[in-house]
Amino acid sequence: MEVKEIELKGHIIDSLILPRVFDTIMDMGGDFDVTEFAIGKKKTEPSYARILIKAKSRKHLDDIIGELIKVGAAVPEIEEAELKPAPKDKTLPDNFYSTTNHPTYLRFDKDWIKAERQEMDLVIVVDTEKKKALCTPVSDVKEGDLVIVGKRGIRVEPPERPRSYSIFEFMGSRVSSEKPTDSLIEEIAKEILKVKKKGGKVLIVAGPAVVHTGAHKELARMIKEGFVDVVFAGNALAVHDIEHSLYGTSLGVDLKTGRPAEGGHRHHLYAINEVMKAGSVSDLVKNGKLKQGVMYESIQKGIPIVLAGSIRDDGPLPEVITDVIQAQREMRTHLNGVEMVLMLSTLLHSVAVGNLLPSSVKTIFVDINPATVTKLADRGTAQALGVITDVGSFLPILATKLQTSSK
Amino acid sequence: MEVKEIELKGHIIDSLILPRVFDTIMDMGGDFDVTEFAIGKKKTEPSYARILIKAKSRKHLDDIIGELIKVGAAVPEIEEAELKPAPKDKTLPDNFYSTTNHPTYLRFDKDWIKAERQEMDLVIVVDTEKKKALCTPVSDVKEGDLVIVGKRGIRVEPPERPRSYSIFEFMGSRVSSEKPTDSLIEEIAKEILKVKKKGGKVLIVAGPAVVHTGAHKELARMIKEGFVDVVFAGNALAVHDIEHSLYGTSLGVDLKTGRPAEGGHRHHLYAINEVMKAGSVSDLVKNGKLKQGVMYESIQKGIPIVLAGSIRDDGPLPEVITDVIQAQREMRTHLNGVEMVLMLSTLLHSVAVGNLLPSSVKTIFVDINPATVTKLADRGTAQALGVITDVGSFLPILATKLQTSSK
Amino acid sequence: MEVKEIELKGHIIDSLILPRVFDTIMDMGGDFDVTEFAIGKKKTEPSYARILIKAKSRKHLDDIIGELIKVGAAVPEIEEAELKPAPKDKTLPDNFYSTTNHPTYLRFDKDWIKAERQEMDLVIVVDTEKKKALCTPVSDVKEGDLVIVGKRGIRVEPPERPRSYSIFEFMGSRVSSEKPTDSLIEEIAKEILKVKKKGGKVLIVAGPAVVHTGAHKELARMIKEGFVDVVFAGNALAVHDIEHSLYGTSLGVDLKTGRPAEGGHRHHLYAINEVMKAGSVSDLVKNGKLKQGVMYESIQKGIPIVLAGSIRDDGPLPEVITDVIQAQREMRTHLNGVEMVLMLSTLLHSVAVGNLLPSSVKTIFVDINPATVTKLADRGTAQALGVITDVGSFLPILATKLQTSSK
Amino acid sequence: MEVKEIELKGHIIDSLILPRVFDTIMDMGGDFDVTEFAIGKKKTEPSYARILIKAKSRKHLDDIIGELIKVGAAVPEIEEAELKPAPKDKTLPDNFYSTTNHPTYLRFDKDWIKAERQEMDLVIVVDTEKKKALCTPVSDVKEGDLVIVGKRGIRVEPPERPRSYSIFEFMGSRVSSEKPTDSLIEEIAKEILKVKKKGGKVLIVAGPAVVHTGAHKELARMIKEGFVDVVFAGNALAVHDIEHSLYGTSLGVDLKTGRPAEGGHRHHLYAINEVMKAGSVSDLVKNGKLKQGVMYESIQKGIPIVLAGSIRDDGPLPEVITDVIQAQREMRTHLNGVEMVLMLSTLLHSVAVGNLLPSSVKTIFVDINPATVTKLADRGTAQALGVITDVGSFLPILATKLQTSSK
Repeated sequence: MEVKEIELKGHIIDSLILPRVFDTIMDMGGDFDVTEFAIGKKKTEPSYARILIKAKSRKHLDDIIGELIKVGAAVPEIEEAELKPAPKDKTLPDNFYSTTNHPTYLRFDKDWIKAERQEMDLVIVVDTEKKKALCTPVSDVKEGDLVIVGKRGIRVEPPERPRSYSIFEFMGSRVSSEKPTDSLIEEIAKEILKVKKKGGKVLIVAGPAVVHTGAHKELARMIKEGFVDVVFAGNALAVHDIEHSLYGTSLGVDLKTGRPAEGGHRHHLYAINEVMKAGSVSDLVKNGKLKQGVMYESIQKGIPIVLAGSIRDDGPLPEVITDVIQAQREMRTHLNGVEMVLMLSTLLHSVAVGNLLPSSVKTIFVDINPATVTKLADRGTAQALGVITDVGSFLPILATKLQTSSK
Repeated sequence: MEVKEIELKGHIIDSLILPRVFDTIMDMGGDFDVTEFAIGKKKTEPSYARILIKAKSRKHLDDIIGELIKVGAAVPEIEEAELKPAPKDKTLPDNFYSTTNHPTYLRFDKDWIKAERQEMDLVIVVDTEKKKALCTPVSDVKEGDLVIVGKRGIRVEPPERPRSYSIFEFMGSRVSSEKPTDSLIEEIAKEILKVKKKGGKVLIVAGPAVVHTGAHKELARMIKEGFVDVVFAGNALAVHDIEHSLYGTSLGVDLKTGRPAEGGHRHHLYAINEVMKAGSVSDLVKNGKLKQGVMYESIQKGIPIVLAGSIRDDGPLPEVITDVIQAQREMRTHLNGVEMVLMLSTLLHSVAVGNLLPSSVKTIFVDINPATVTKLADRGTAQALGVITDVGSFLPILATKLQTSSK
Repeated sequence: MEVKEIELKGHIIDSLILPRVFDTIMDMGGDFDVTEFAIGKKKTEPSYARILIKAKSRKHLDDIIGELIKVGAAVPEIEEAELKPAPKDKTLPDNFYSTTNHPTYLRFDKDWIKAERQEMDLVIVVDTEKKKALCTPVSDVKEGDLVIVGKRGIRVEPPERPRSYSIFEFMGSRVSSEKPTDSLIEEIAKEILKVKKKGGKVLIVAGPAVVHTGAHKELARMIKEGFVDVVFAGNALAVHDIEHSLYGTSLGVDLKTGRPAEGGHRHHLYAINEVMKAGSVSDLVKNGKLKQGVMYESIQKGIPIVLAGSIRDDGPLPEVITDVIQAQREMRTHLNGVEMVLMLSTLLHSVAVGNLLPSSVKTIFVDINPATVTKLADRGTAQALGVITDVGSFLPILATKLQTSSK
Repeated sequence: MEVKEIELKGHIIDSLILPRVFDTIMDMGGDFDVTEFAIGKKKTEPSYARILIKAKSRKHLDDIIGELIKVGAAVPEIEEAELKPAPKDKTLPDNFYSTTNHPTYLRFDKDWIKAERQEMDLVIVVDTEKKKALCTPVSDVKEGDLVIVGKRGIRVEPPERPRSYSIFEFMGSRVSSEKPTDSLIEEIAKEILKVKKKGGKVLIVAGPAVVHTGAHKELARMIKEGFVDVVFAGNALAVHDIEHSLYGTSLGVDLKTGRPAEGGHRHHLYAINEVMKAGSVSDLVKNGKLKQGVMYESIQKGIPIVLAGSIRDDGPLPEVITDVIQAQREMRTHLNGVEMVLMLSTLLHSVAVGNLLPSSVKTIFVDINPATVTKLADRGTAQALGVITDVGSFLPILATKLQTSSK
């Protein structure tokens, strides 16, 4: 039998860290003794626990400790993180450590270094000279990069349950369409304003249904009024947004009357061709032909808008990044400072962006499909809120509440 | 081989009656010759067709003719409808004719009598003295009632496709959440006003999600402002509506803050008990304790509100009809004059009420679940429109548009 | 400030009782000191905690204690439960105690009495002579019945997280359609056999989709082979089951070919009429006309089958209990000894039956709609498992695995 | 007023071509006279109609004729198609003709040329020397390419309703989960065998849920047994398929027990790294490490498997085409000869592939989400069948039925 002691600090009971540690040990077939336990006597005091883990073998022990680290346990003895070079480009040394989306620290040269660009399912590459650690996707690993292997010398800080009331605690727990819509959107507006006030950035991830439901007019308004700092979308959103600006239709449907326009099914191809003739979407704004909509307001406001390609795309527009790995890289460069993300009716983009976010970012998923919302909300972010509703009703109410509340 | 001729009149091509006739004959293994065909030369002219049906046997021919009658074919030779007495209560003679939801005429005593209270899956009981025919559910059939059997002497008038543009044609065809929300609701408001203007009645069928999402305040407003003539609901809607009026919560959730109220999970039981103490919901209004909400406004306005029981019910309230067959009867008595139905987030009630409606009633189904909307929209009503959205966003927008448009 | 001490015993950390107690106190605006804490040093040892609750007022304290009792806290000082008579039939004394679905004990005459027929959202009526307590729906309360009021002298035992591995722990947590279907159904079969082996009863709650998908043949087989002890369903399941037995169709669709049968839309009305002619479903079995299916096998096997009415019902069959409160009563009488429930594609029935069950009963929800499964799984039963799948695929696989595994 | 005559031939009534023509003219505000009409007297005889279209202006007339051509009308006078050169790469001449997914013919040099690689929303580029016409996506148009503009000299042949019974007619019309599962899958198996027998190719488009539900084992079996000719998928399917082959898990869940494996959440990254170490998936097969699964069987069988990239991708594997436009091109090259497509639990891929298919290809969509199935089935393919079910139950039943039926 192999044993090792771990320690836990903070609001480990009501943030469910202690129960999760117990669960993990038992689920993995280990055993434990609680060697020390000091519960916070008052609700503001942190608790402390030392737990002796018992495992069948060294490997078993390492596996258990590896999991416990991810839920916030620390190993009190000081161990250095282990580094091994990548054997070739895009290839990792065996037993590499893969990241969670929580803040992670490495013990290196008797110091704790914080890994930068935290994101899940990456590896950590260490620059031993500069004493810097960077979360890195496998596609960016170069031969010889020093990659963390094993589980020693690593400390993870999962978020504690916040002590204050917020929409995320009260609403986030259950994904249900039977919630008070109006007060829910009111709270979301307040959270956005709170983030903006502290200087945080708001990222919008939007699918084409935003245009089909006519709600992109409200999104454009939110951009114009300064509530949005970054937009991630795809070719379809941009094409239909431009289609509507030029022809009043989305996928050929007249958004004023809800009726298919004559010959309207060609409008999205016409819109693409107008952009091609101009050279780019920016050029279409410059030459005065594109005068409204999400693309127009983003370009006018100068906020970054990353358009990622997908195999469904018609065209695509020149601004679309057709290489998906390049698109991931471009999205990563715009995540710095983002503290809130609204994901609007797009499963593909939402999953992709969700994977890129550290756990500290507040995320709100709006979709008509409860299965989509459940899938998205269940990704380990600290503060995730799923709203099952029609984005065409959601955005107008939100835009109005933002405007009212910000005065 | 057996043959018989049928005839078709009206806009039989673009109302799809002729294609459906061809389909039916072929699906049932019959054959046909077109003996006469005069197409409307202009778009306002009706067409005319005579078709000779060929079948393998007399029974086969009768079966085919039986189906063709339901899609609008008529048999030119004059045959009297056949009547047989019910052998005992709630029991039908063999080979009874079961109704569609389209207007139906019977040949009796050399006259065409229109069946009253048209509804599908019923039988037609004929009062031979008064020369009246009544669509009757099996549970109301009495021993000796004269019931139509076979398929002779019956003429059905399925609705033709209306020539004018309306929301039902343009939107109804596809059930999709990706429709322009705002213009869609605008059109629905116009349809409601159109019905009201002609003196038609508007029926609301509402589930408890209307209260959970906070939208019942808007429904109450619509009732107060006279846009609603009848309400069908269940115990849960009434209980949560009263819970919210008395305690500000719905299923214990404070609708202002979206947070669970202290001890709120008992509020619906408290609400029931307050009604019990008063005697009935009406008494709670009379004694001044119930001052707002859907139940309050309905009672104040004097419009009928039928509460049907279900096995989920807590309580139930004294106004709830706990016998489901009795509840069906009560609902039927309030359908006279109803020209539009809004079914709001309730699968059970919507299916039940849908079954009671003749095909001429315009029906709008609002639900967050596309499968529910598809199921409901697919019931052969002439003018059905499915809206996939959150009722909590839908009703506030509708109520506002109704108010604005009606001025 | 008012204070009172509570105590907690058992696996209060990994069963999440302690975290829930902390949460509840903080959510309700109270404060606390931990006055004693002994953590189980090994995983088999129970823990113990004494916590001093601090509240703003006597009412506030009572409210907090009331909630804590429901999650498993006990008040160490001995207090008698308070009783008040019901002022009239179906009407409760103010401040009545409403039940959870966990085992509940009352302090009466210096003894702890266990409430019988545990079910949530009921009240507890005490027979002071016989020293018996019965969970009672408001509709069954009679004038003068002694009803528990307030929160004193009540002890609730929420289920602890079981220490052994089971399908409910591993699968139940997340409602997702992306689970390994075959191994999931295999585990469900094992759980059913485990329950049967211990002498527990298995209840099936089934909707009409079971017949429409053709899976009722497998359900009939499971009944015949003795895996089912009770069936709850509605008129539609029974009608379509009989329709299929008599005519080979369900709602007119030939289940062998998947094609609509000629004149098949009348078959369900014909099936109802055959039953009416015979007198009842049992009579149709007796006279030899009904020879297979769910109804046939249930009647042959002599297991209880409760058919509850709904407002959608055609007919209904004579066995259907059309009064919903009477139907609830009838269902309650068959729950004794039930240890596992399979709810198959029926939202209405599942919610209704879920409300009637004590928290110790294992429940499995099978539905194609993830929103339905989420709604059902989220009702506080100890061991609930949601399976998002087509019941038409699920039952054949389950029936086969049951047969194989039971050998 | 402008007028022009069109003609219609074939089973124009029961294939709904005539009703659609009438609808289109009226929807677009035009008028018409029927100048000649000869209905097929027997069900095997084609009908014939000449219709005089009346429009407000030359443009209005052209617009109406343009739409009528798409639903199958022909202009009897002989007009040559009009060609204009593309002004630059990826840019089209104004008023370009965009394709439907139906077979299309162009009048060029007094001959009718059939456009190759029919697909919707493309343009037609004509090689005037070789007298060849090719449907071309805008991204592949080169400066100077001769592109069809306007609507003259174009003939479209929409599919007629087939006269024989098939699963597509009977089941395809309604998207519902309440269908007889077993007989439905039986019919699908028969259709696949029919296609294979005639020498048609079967294409599988599969999402990662196929692996998560454990059904990929059956897909691998179908590939091994020769029922599959082409596979389109993404990185995730390939990664999880390899993960399962190497470690027995999918996304870390042990597919035998349904339980999360120890450290299993790293397995997909390990699987990617094993491929990277080997060089490619093919190399991993060659070096004997990959011994089973969809990727293994496809490589062993030598059938093409196109892996298209998406922004969700981890890794990705070396075989994944990360440029989405390149991936579209690669998919197009494998569509020749494909007569049936099964789309398994993947919205993104299904929409993308659906866009690439001519209307003659039979398509079957399998998904647990009815909204997905509705969206996919509604894309104008002649023979589309939506099956709402769990792919984890569907594939085992299908694979077994294929094996049984093919003997």
